[in-house]
Formats: sequence, C-alpha cells, structure tokens
Amino acid sequence: MNKNSSNIMALAPNTSNKRETVCIFGTGDFGRALGHKLIQSGYPVVYGSRSTQISNLIPKDAEVLGHAEAAQKAAIIIIAIQRQHYNFLTPLAEVLRGKVLVDISNNLKLNQYPESNAEYLAQLLPGSKVVKAFNTVSAWALQSGTLDASRQVRLSNGAKQMVMDIVRALGLTPLDKGSLLAAQEIENYPLQLFPMWKFPIFLSFGLGAFFFIYCLVLDVIYTYIYENNNFSFFIAITIPNRVFPVMALILFALVYLPGIFAAIIQLYRGTKYRRFPDWLDKWMLCRKQLGLIALAFASLHVVFTLVTPLRAFASWRTSKRIVSQVSFVPCSNDSYLALGILGYFLFVLLGITSLPSVSNNVNWREFRFVQSKLGYLALILCTAHTMIYGGKWFLSPSAYKWYLPDIYILSLIVPCAILVVKFVLIFPCVDKPLTRIRQGWERNPKYSEQSNHIINKSAV
Amino acid sequence: MNKNSSNIMALAPNTSNKRETVCIFGTGDFGRALGHKLIQSGYPVVYGSRSTQISNLIPKDAEVLGHAEAAQKAAIIIIAIQRQHYNFLTPLAEVLRGKVLVDISNNLKLNQYPESNAEYLAQLLPGSKVVKAFNTVSAWALQSGTLDASRQVRLSNGAKQMVMDIVRALGLTPLDKGSLLAAQEIENYPLQLFPMWKFPIFLSFGLGAFFFIYCLVLDVIYTYIYENNNFSFFIAITIPNRVFPVMALILFALVYLPGIFAAIIQLYRGTKYRRFPDWLDKWMLCRKQLGLIALAFASLHVVFTLVTPLRAFASWRTSKRIVSQVSFVPCSNDSYLALGILGYFLFVLLGITSLPSVSNNVNWREFRFVQSKLGYLALILCTAHTMIYGGKWFLSPSAYKWYLPDIYILSLIVPCAILVVKFVLIFPCVDKPLTRIRQGWERNPKYSEQSNHIINKSAV
Amino acid sequence: MNKNSSNIMALAPNTSNKRETVCIFGTGDFGRALGHKLIQSGYPVVYGSRSTQISNLIPKDAEVLGHAEAAQKAAIIIIAIQRQHYNFLTPLAEVLRGKVLVDISNNLKLNQYPESNAEYLAQLLPGSKVVKAFNTVSAWALQSGTLDASRQVRLSNGAKQMVMDIVRALGLTPLDKGSLLAAQEIENYPLQLFPMWKFPIFLSFGLGAFFFIYCLVLDVIYTYIYENNNFSFFIAITIPNRVFPVMALILFALVYLPGIFAAIIQLYRGTKYRRFPDWLDKWMLCRKQLGLIALAFASLHVVFTLVTPLRAFASWRTSKRIVSQVSFVPCSNDSYLALGILGYFLFVLLGITSLPSVSNNVNWREFRFVQSKLGYLALILCTAHTMIYGGKWFLSPSAYKWYLPDIYILSLIVPCAILVVKFVLIFPCVDKPLTRIRQGWERNPKYSEQSNHIINKSAV
Repeated sequence: MNKNSSNIMALAPNTSNKRETVCIFGTGDFGRALGHKLIQSGYPVVYGSRSTQISNLIPKDAEVLGHAEAAQKAAIIIIAIQRQHYNFLTPLAEVLRGKVLVDISNNLKLNQYPESNAEYLAQLLPGSKVVKAFNTVSAWALQSGTLDASRQVRLSNGAKQMVMDIVRALGLTPLDKGSLLAAQEIENYPLQLFPMWKFPIFLSFGLGAFFFIYCLVLDVIYTYIYENNNFSFFIAITIPNRVFPVMALILFALVYLPGIFAAIIQLYRGTKYRRFPDWLDKWMLCRKQLGLIALAFASLHVVFTLVTPLRAFASWRTSKRIVSQVSFVPCSNDSYLALGILGYFLFVLLGITSLPSVSNNVNWREFRFVQSKLGYLALILCTAHTMIYGGKWFLSPSAYKWYLPDIYILSLIVPCAILVVKFVLIFPCVDKPLTRIRQGWERNPKYSEQSNHIINKSAV
Repeated sequence: MNKNSSNIMALAPNTSNKRETVCIFGTGDFGRALGHKLIQSGYPVVYGSRSTQISNLIPKDAEVLGHAEAAQKAAIIIIAIQRQHYNFLTPLAEVLRGKVLVDISNNLKLNQYPESNAEYLAQLLPGSKVVKAFNTVSAWALQSGTLDASRQVRLSNGAKQMVMDIVRALGLTPLDKGSLLAAQEIENYPLQLFPMWKFPIFLSFGLGAFFFIYCLVLDVIYTYIYENNNFSFFIAITIPNRVFPVMALILFALVYLPGIFAAIIQLYRGTKYRRFPDWLDKWMLCRKQLGLIALAFASLHVVFTLVTPLRAFASWRTSKRIVSQVSFVPCSNDSYLALGILGYFLFVLLGITSLPSVSNNVNWREFRFVQSKLGYLALILCTAHTMIYGGKWFLSPSAYKWYLPDIYILSLIVPCAILVVKFVLIFPCVDKPLTRIRQGWERNPKYSEQSNHIINKSAV
Repeated sequence: MNKNSSNIMALAPNTSNKRETVCIFGTGDFGRALGHKLIQSGYPVVYGSRSTQISNLIPKDAEVLGHAEAAQKAAIIIIAIQRQHYNFLTPLAEVLRGKVLVDISNNLKLNQYPESNAEYLAQLLPGSKVVKAFNTVSAWALQSGTLDASRQVRLSNGAKQMVMDIVRALGLTPLDKGSLLAAQEIENYPLQLFPMWKFPIFLSFGLGAFFFIYCLVLDVIYTYIYENNNFSFFIAITIPNRVFPVMALILFALVYLPGIFAAIIQLYRGTKYRRFPDWLDKWMLCRKQLGLIALAFASLHVVFTLVTPLRAFASWRTSKRIVSQVSFVPCSNDSYLALGILGYFLFVLLGITSLPSVSNNVNWREFRFVQSKLGYLALILCTAHTMIYGGKWFLSPSAYKWYLPDIYILSLIVPCAILVVKFVLIFPCVDKPLTRIRQGWERNPKYSEQSNHIINKSAV
C-alpha cells in the first residue's frame, strides 16, 4: 500500500489484537462471502475443502486445505455446509474436539427437522462447542456491505465470546440469545414472515371485504334496482373512499379497546396481580400493528379525498350530468375538514413515534404521553370528524336504504363506546382506585405480598 | 425440548459462559418481569421474599427463599422494592457486604428526595457496590418483548461489567453514564417529558396565537364592522391556512438565525475561542426541534391548501354567492405553486435526514451538506413562494386594513433579513476571515495557544 | 452535590471500575470537547501543552502540564493536533514508547497525503501503538451531546480494547475497522459526500433534462410554431408534472432491471459461481438509491397533480378561455387514479422499509417479500396507471407531433419489457432451473465443488 506499511506489519505482532485464524468448511456462497469479509477484517482464513484446487472465486489470500488439516489450524471452524452433509464430519470428531463450531445453516421450512441443525451438530460431535450464528445474515449483504435488512447476528451458547468478537469485527451486531436450546428459535427466525402482523392483516382484510360488499349492495345494487341508475363507476374511487375511513376509524378504536377492557378487568378483580385472559394479552401485543394499518387506511382516505376535485373537474368538463357523482361531499361548514386534517396529523405523529429509531430515543413517560394522550386526542378528533360529516343525514330516512344504516354510522359504534367508557374512567371516583390498583394495591390481598412492588409502568 | 438436549446440558458446564445466579429482592411487577426474562436468558434466579410461599405469578424455575438465604446465593442482587422500604435492608448489611446491588427504583416526581435512591441505598449499605440500572425500562416492555419505547438501560458506577453483561444478555443496550453521582440524572430521566421541546413548543404556541388573533381582527372583525359581512366561517380553514404558512416560514427562519448571529459574533470578536452567550447556545441546541415544528406547520399548510378546491366545489354547488370565499387563491402564474412544492419537498428531505437512524448513517460532511446547503435552498424557495404569492398586493392600499400589514408581509421580515446577511457572509472578503477564524486563527491571540488545534467541524 | 456524596467518593476506590487517566495533547476545539466529555464520564484528564497557563476554556478539573510530564501520567494519549505539527512528537519518542496514541486528525481533502495520518504517526513513533479513532465525530456533537449526524466511532488496530472502552463510556458506538491499514479509509470517511448516490443522481439529472427538453419542444415550441399559441406558462407545472411521473416510472423500473439481467445471465451460464460483469454489480448496489429517487419523483408527481384543481379553479375564475390549460386530465373512468394511488401507496411502503431502523428489524425473508413481491406489485400498478391514463391517445394521430411519441409512451418501454420477461421467468419451466442454479446446482460443474454450499439467499 505504501512504504511504511512494513512498519505497521512489524508492529502488529506486538499488539494483543493479533487476529486468530478462522477455518471455514465449505466453499459455497456463504463460505466465500464470509471468508472475503474475514480477510478484509484482518483474520487469516483457511478453507477446508474436498478438492484443494483453488477456484478463482475463493478469496485470494485464503489457504485451501483438506478438512482435517484446515481444522487443525484454527480454534474456530465455521460450518458452511448443508445439514444433510453434516455426517461427513463424524470422522473428523477427534480433530474437532474442543474446537468452536459455528453452525450457520438455514432450513427451507419452519421446524423442518425435529431438532435444530445446531443441536443435531452438537449431537454428532459431542466433544466440540457448537454456536449458532450468522444464519440471519445473507451472503449478499455480507459481500455488498449494504445495510439492507438486518445486520443483527443472533447467536447462542458455547464459546460465544470468540464468535462475538468476530461478529463485531465484521461490523455486525451480535445479539446473544442464550443457550443452544435457543438455536431452534434462531433457525426459525429467518423463515418467519411478519408473524406479529398476521392477525391484524387478516382482521382488516375481513372487515374491509365486509364493508366493501355492504357498500356495493347499498350504493350500486340498490340504486340499480330501485332507481335504475348504473353507478358501477363508484367501484374505483367512491366506494373505496367510503370503506377506507370506516376501516381506519374502527381499527384505530381497536387499538384503544384492550386498554379499556384491561382497566375494567382490573377494577372488577381489585388487583393487577392476575394474568389477563390470553386473548387480551395477544390483542395488547398487536396494538402497534393495528394502529399502523389504521394509519395506512387513513392515508389512503386522505389521498382518495384530495383526488375528488380532479375527478369532479374532469366530469364537469365532459358532461354536466355526472356532476352528481361527487355529491358525497357535504359541506355547509368547513369544521369537519379541519377536524379531519388535525386528527390525521396527530395520527401521523403517532406513526412516526412508532419508528424504532424514534421510539428508542424517548423515555417511557414520553412514549405513553404520545401514544396515550395524543392518541386519544386523535381518536376524539377523528370521531368528531365522522360525526359532523354524517350529522345532517343521521335522521334523514333516505339514508336508510333497506333499513340498513350507512357504514359511517357503523364505524362510530366502537369509538363512541370507547370514548364514553374512557370518560367514565377518568372520573376521580373511578380513576383513584384504578391508579392505586396499578401501583400495586389490592382489594383482597391474597395472591402476593403487599409491600414488595415498585411503581407500575404498565402500558394500559 | 427434544432428546438431545441432555447433550447440550452436559456440554454447558464445560463452557466458560455458565451464567451466574442472580438474586431479586421483591416479587412485584418489575421483579417478576425481570426474573422471567433472566430465566429465559439462562440465568438461575432466586427471589428474596418475606413469605417464601410461591405465588403462581413467580416464574416457575425460580427459587424463593428468605432475603438473607437468597442474597447468599448470588453476587448480584437486584433491589426491586420501593425506596421507603430500603431500611429493612440494614439488618442484612453483613450478608450484602461486597455484593453488587442493582437499584432499579423510580420516583413519582422529579427530585422527590434530596439524594437519588441509589445514593441513599449506598449510604445505607456502605459495604456494598450500588449500581443504578434498569429504571428506564418498563416491566411491560420486558414482559412483552416489544420494542416500544427505549431498550436502552442507563447505568452508573460500581461493578458495572457484571451488570452490563446481564443487560446485554437480555437483549437490551447498556448506556454507561459514569459514577453513582449520575444516579440522580438516571432517576430523573424516565420522569422527563420532552425537555428539549418545551421552549420551541411554547414559542410556536405564542406566535401562533398572536397571528391567529391578528388575522381574526383583520379578516373577520374588520370586515364585519366596515363591510357588514359575516366571515366567521373563515375560522375553521381559511385563517388557519394563513397562520400555518406564516408560522412555518418564521420558525424555519429561526433555525438559521442563530448561525448568522454566531458568524457575526465570531467575526466581531476575531476568535472562536470564547463562549457564545447562553441564549445563543440554548437556541442552537433547539434548532432541530424548531425545524421539525416548522415542518409540521408546513405540512398542515399543504393539506389545508389541497383541501381548498373540495370546499370551493362544494360551495359552488350550494350557492354561487359564496365562491368569493376562496378568493385567497391568487394566480396569474403557476410559479409560486411550483416553488412552494419544491421548497416543501426539500423541507421534508431535511426532516427525514433528522430521523435518528438516518442521521446515524451519514457522516458529518453529508449531514452539514443536507442541513446547511439544502436547508438554505429550501428557505430561499419558501421565501420566494411567499413573495410571489403576495407580490401583487404588496403596494395595493386595500391590503392595509387599519394601516396594519397583512401577515404574509410580517412573515417575510426574518427570512429576508437572514438571506441578505447570509448573502453578505458568502462574499470572499467576509467568508475568508470567517473560515480562518473557524479553523482556529485569532485576530488577537491571547486566550489560547495558537498551534494546537485541529480542523474545526463546528456546525455553525 | 449532597451530603452523602462523600460516601460515594469513598466507595469509588474500592470498585474495579476506577477510570484510568487519559492524556490529551493539544488544547484546540476537539481536545477541549473530548476532555470535557471524558471528565463528565469520570476519567481523570491531563492536558499536554506548550504553555501550562490554564485558559478558561479548558475544563476545570483537568490538569495542564508540559507534554512529557502529561504523557507519563497516562497509558493513552489522544493526539489532538494537526498532522503538520506531528514532528514535534519525535523528541518525545522515549516517553511515548509502549503507550497507546489515538490519532483523531482529519485532512481537508481526500487522499491529501500518500499515507494516512495515523500511518505517518506510526512511522514517526515506531515504539508506540497507534489507533485511529474519533475523527468521524465532531467537536460540536461531543459538546452539545446532540444526536446530530453519526455517533459511530470508526477505529482501527492496536490496543483497541482500551480505546473502545473509552468510546463506549462516552456514549458513542465503536465500529472496529481492522488493522491500521484501514486508517486511510477511516480518514477519508468524513470527507465523503454521498458516494453511493452520485451515479443515481447524475443519471436522473441527465434523464430529467432530456425529457424536460423533449416536452418543451413538443408542447411549447411545436404549439407556438404550428398553432401560434403561447403555452410557455406550461413550464412551471404542466411540463414538470409530465416529466416527474415518467422519471419515477423509468427509475423504478431500473431498480428491477438488474435482477432480470442477473437471472438471464445465470440461466445462460448455467451456474451462479461466476462473477457478474462489473457494471451489473455496481448497478445492483445502487438499486436502493435509484428506488428512493424514483419515490421522490413520484411524490412530486402526486403533489403537482393534486394542485391541478387549485390552478384550474383559479384560471376558471380569471378567464374562461384558459380552462383548456388543464385539459391534460383525461377521465372517462376513475380506475387509473385508483391504480396510481395504490401503486404510490405501496411505493411509500417500500420507502419506509428501507429506513435503516426499520430494515434492521425485519429478517431477510421479510425484506425480500417487501422489496421483491410488493415491489413488483407496485411496478405493475404504476405501469397499469400509466397505460390506462394514456390508453385512448395511443392510436390517435394528433398525439404524434413531428412523428415523435409522447413521453408517457417512452416511459412504458422499460417497465413493460421487465414485466414481460419477469412473467416468462416465473413459468415453471424457467423458474425451476433458475431456482436450482441459485441453490448451487451447476449445468457444467467445473468452477467449484458441488456439495459444499448452503441455501442461497441472493437478493436477485
């Protein structure tokens, strides 16, 4: 590189940070990507391979030896081969005794085998220390050095410290997951597909489909039958823009409903030292996801609404007759627009606060202030927006086609119920015992000792 | 779990990572949540409790003993009880001698006691090593494993390494805050509510209220008195949409004003080695918050403006007479719209760059390029947008009701002044000495030695 | 601070975490900022300086001594002076022998000197251990404690552990970059200006300018010559709003084009064990940047479109004649609007997922699902949006001024080609061999051994 690099090199042996040789079994994608990266980070790398002929894909500064010779050169051996080939390692058991084996394999399906690959390896080579690591990082990310997807390396057990040092040296973040029993979890991690999002997404699809059909029946089919008007062009924008705000409001309300239930249960039981029912626990854990989906629907509602004049204008140009198409914009006063915009604005703030990097920089009190106080304010604004929007039609008989209420009335049920109950809950005569219960007081103290508890920081 | 787990278990004792027993005093919310988490991470947990009867809420694999017996089993004791019960620990002083006590307590108010809880504990048990930790994490977050709010554990003093290992093993991030004297700060942290945001938010509320009343007087009351028109429906959208852009522009300008002041002060003093006045230091530290509030106002302005045709269209349908209501949209050319959109676009870019995860991935030069160069470009675009918007009314006498200028003229004062001074500052004859001063040169070098400084990276 | 602080102080010497003295050479900006921060974190600090007169800018609790005396007091010496003054250190070589020198200097230009400053220092003082660190953090950020820009400290080589402990104690994140040979890279890092963004930005400027001129010629100049209409007011909004969507669609398509090329190359070669051509590698690495620029153009398109009725309304008020100005809004059905909104919505989702803090919380499979599946869906929706928008003009001869196609037709070429080829690639007869190749199978296995590979996680 330059003339004084010799000085540096001469210096290196003195330092305590001389990197240890790392051995890699397997010259596949991941083995080579990891080797490249290790060499770049200053680790001597030796590959263990059946054919010691050096392919031009293997990093230049790496040595390629037979498996046994390669293993003898290093204290850490990275096993970059597939599970079905693990049994070829059994003859090497003696050489691998006492060494750290890093299992980096992935399976194609969740729970493909009864035991995790790392546990299987530990079973095959009981004399070696098996660590699960690197399986959550992709060869591509290692090679390109891009930050795409996660840089977190989950690892388990064994002589972790050595492996963690390597992980850090590669610029990745080690995440210690405990003993090798966690290997199954670590191996399943990269095969998961948004497990926390499944229920909220199914729920919103189901609700969305129901409301879409409900609207279709009332607005298109009813009109076609009784008024003989073909309003099928409503399907593209008008009906979605009725369904989206309804979905947004209902899902947003569902974020605050479990908190209400929890408060009622705690008041009824007179203690917080009993588990909530399972469904409530699960519901509470997916509140963030529900809220974000609600925000997505609200955003779609905003854009679909803003697009209305574009369509109106175009329609007006082509034919005076279709102007009635946009007649769903009521007016008389602007306040419902202003309420809607402010509610949406607070809602977006909530969304921004739930970004991991932002929420990591606020303390618990600030997080609760935003998610609870500002959240309820947003819910009140959005509910008021919907009420004022539909207010004038509420008692008009023409709004009840086939005696069915308009969907905006349906959408108001849950948020109004929540706001009424919440209003009752903040009365001092209810709030005081609830606060005491949440600080550990018990009406009937038999479940746990009374004195040993600290200030409750429950999210309810 | 599966049949070869025995192999793993047999393996464990050989490894150097055998986890040490952790003792927890107190079986309240936090004590149990922490115990659960510790057991999951492979730590043996023993609870110290008055009644050794095992409640069904305590994690299954945990032992429950009396306080003294429990303490003897572990080197680390987590004190999960409230401050007012600390004195029961004094009889245990002998048992706790030399052990690491982790104080996790929180108070209800800022500076509730003269000394921090951790210092009080250290005073009670002078033979033990007290570490403050975990008080910034909530029991709820520990139990649910969700990433809500912060995962950062601030800790202080003492045998930190042992506690930091535990923090890391739980998947949390330790943040070392120095000696136990920092405990007060750590205890106050979870009680803070956006301390950096207070001044910018009060400022914007004050300014906003002033401009709102100013507009109300000029647009509604003046018109009512002299023209006998009731324009009170302006309150919902029209007046806010005049106040929002004015607030956005002024607050945005206030982000760049302290930099201008700093440059002038440095030029006048001829050195950078003297502190800025306190008000300037504080102002500089809240520039980010001012900018984000300005962005919020700008976003509201955008949505309120985009909503205009919706209202116009609706009004037009109900009555031709009220069309004048939207007469605040001037036109003749589109350029002010284009300028406004581009300015807003750059402003949003600035906002995205200030997200912690994004700003953490840019270097100092890139950050300055975005915040300074692109920031000034956005300021120029927004100022031009306002100027062109109001240009044609500038000299029209009808715009000066009661001899008061329209607020858009008020809003232009600060940004125009900044742009003019900045324009002067980039002239070579001014820029050159300023750059030299910022690189450490002094006109009158008496405050510090001249040679020992490195390239200045000041944000001014 | 309070009365029991003496107890804490007395306690401190017992703890194993007594901080070591740190010596700082140089009392410039950075030296003082670092000293302040170190003292706050509990490190005793001693400054080495030519004049031992204590300036009021130096932190109060720091000692100021001559260089040699200061160096003797500490094991770590932070060299906060400029490179050109390094040679004054040579007389101190004996005192500095065996000590850790932390080089924190920055240069003004990339590759200003043949060797990095740290290597130069190591050359001057061969007996000391040189570590490069802190140069990526600004004095301003250290002093203010703000999170602006990066908190990551890249460091190299030597007695890293001691320096890393200090970095962590200051609340910063150490990033280990290997041997001192990495110092050049570390020194160049803070001088970079978005190196990954350069090509995508130049490309989009070039393409943008081309399409802008193309539109200008066809819409303004052609009309002026043949129809004698002055449409120059198109420049502000109408023409940008034609260029933006075209740019967005083309750049979005360019994100997916390299993946298609890679698949074809792999199918043709029958192996994945050969490097892609260099241009393809580079292209693949800047896909994220291309996508984000495309998103920026799409967002501008959305706002410019939503602004249309504002202008139309204003025009309509001033003169009936200019209403034709907005005639570029076609209609007849709303579906293209709905498609566009949904496509944009998915596009924004992709953008949010590429935020570092979000992408760090998804696993590889989830990341691919979003970026590949949802990405293609967004591309299909956006392409359909453009097709339906322009559909009715496609065969109209008036659309071909000077026999040149409208730009929306040009914009469809790349995305349509991609969608057609992708459609072919998902046919089982093509997809199966491709999947096998990506899992390591080779048609002609001569480049590497066949058995040793793990499941491919390539991003293609």
